[in-house]
Amino acid sequence: MSLPPAVSCDICNRWETDEDLRIVEFGLSYLVLSRDQFFPGYCLLFTKKHVTELFHLDPEARQELMEQVSRVACVLSGLFRADKINYELLGNMVPHIHWHLVPRFRHDPLWPQPVWAGPHQELLLTDEEYRQRCSAIRQALEAV
Amino acid sequence: MSLPPAVSCDICNRWETDEDLRIVEFGLSYLVLSRDQFFPGYCLLFTKKHVTELFHLDPEARQELMEQVSRVACVLSGLFRADKINYELLGNMVPHIHWHLVPRFRHDPLWPQPVWAGPHQELLLTDEEYRQRCSAIRQALEAV
Repeated sequence: MSLPPAVSCDICNRWETDEDLRIVEFGLSYLVLSRDQFFPGYCLLFTKKHVTELFHLDPEARQELMEQVSRVACVLSGLFRADKINYELLGNMVPHIHWHLVPRFRHDPLWPQPVWAGPHQELLLTDEEYRQRCSAIRQALEAV
Repeated sequence: MSLPPAVSCDICNRWETDEDLRIVEFGLSYLVLSRDQFFPGYCLLFTKKHVTELFHLDPEARQELMEQVSRVACVLSGLFRADKINYELLGNMVPHIHWHLVPRFRHDPLWPQPVWAGPHQELLLTDEEYRQRCSAIRQALEAV
């Protein structure tokens, strides 16, 4: 079950608007880097279709989505030497399935709390740093 | 890939210690009600085995786990008339796969922020209320 693209949905538009953060296009989803890299490697994986809940997907689509979530998490864990991956599907503000995949580190300022437990200063990279980070994740995904 | 039960792991011990909060035993996981019911219907779904990351499971186990996550989310959404379900796999404090499945409501005090974005007063129920709530979720799961 899915709805047509919502013109006003930030996630529906994300692949177009955040061209410089694109990592890879999967069959049913897109992977982009979060512009805020306070947590190094923080990515968003979202469905191409405007779908709100995991249980609105048919089982095959859900399985494919979750296999990509797992695969990306594995790659981020290795590449950034994370102590833990946080997987979060919320959508209270933008009700279009988007997974927050966040590498966490014992040395990160909010550890061991969830990333939302306190404020942090947004960390923006240079254009070249974004390119390099997206490329590193893309290459690691291709290698598995 | 999994480790033997960890004696000191709160999740490994949860099915035994929180007997009054048991909802249902699935093939590879358990579902319990969160003792804190500030968010009505808040449940935890955790693997029987002590496994840390989604990508440590083999694909079949991951698929079964995620189908149960989806099924429980669907039932919670209907039973509690939630506006959104939040699905969170963190494990920074207790690194044993446990999904926080949290019905969210436009009228809940932290909406639309994540549940961790601010403090809230823990809401405890009476023994009879816990029994009724667990039973209602169990019956709704059996009906689908």
